[in-house]
Amino acid sequence: MKVRVTVMLKDGVLDPQGKAISHALQTLGFDGVQDVRVGKVIELDLPGAKAEEAQKKADAMACDLLANLVIEDYSVEVVE
Amino acid sequence: MKVRVTVMLKDGVLDPQGKAISHALQTLGFDGVQDVRVGKVIELDLPGAKAEEAQKKADAMACDLLANLVIEDYSVEVVE
Repeated sequence: MKVRVTVMLKDGVLDPQGKAISHALQTLGFDGVQDVRVGKVIELDLPGAKAEEAQKKADAMACDLLANLVIEDYSVEVVE
Repeated sequence: MKVRVTVMLKDGVLDPQGKAISHALQTLGFDGVQDVRVGKVIELDLPGAKAEEAQKKADAMACDLLANLVIEDYSVEVVE
């Protein structure tokens, strides 16, 4: 079972990487970009786990290691 | 219109960050993780753009700046 954990900075937390991308896009001539936020995707392969179990495992992994819950939010999605 | 660009390393390209996470998860007692791949998500806010236009713009941005097409693949998804 493949699980995708998406980790994004919480709203209100400054995102310098996003700001840098926004400036770079403007420099390249892409107008109309108001806001850019950058996050991480972690794709985990959990062979033999059922969907519900995989979701729970990924949830625990995100809490313990993958996300810093002080400044980041995460979401877990079972892919296949 | 919000657009999400997901950038992942191509299959076969070594992913040291994924390997490090995999080891860390094992150290923390999470068994059964076979493979971990890490990528980026870039959320772009393109106000005033329609879905099709936003998709095209994000596609061009991914080609020009967000993804390194030699080693990375990207996908574009219109969120709202």
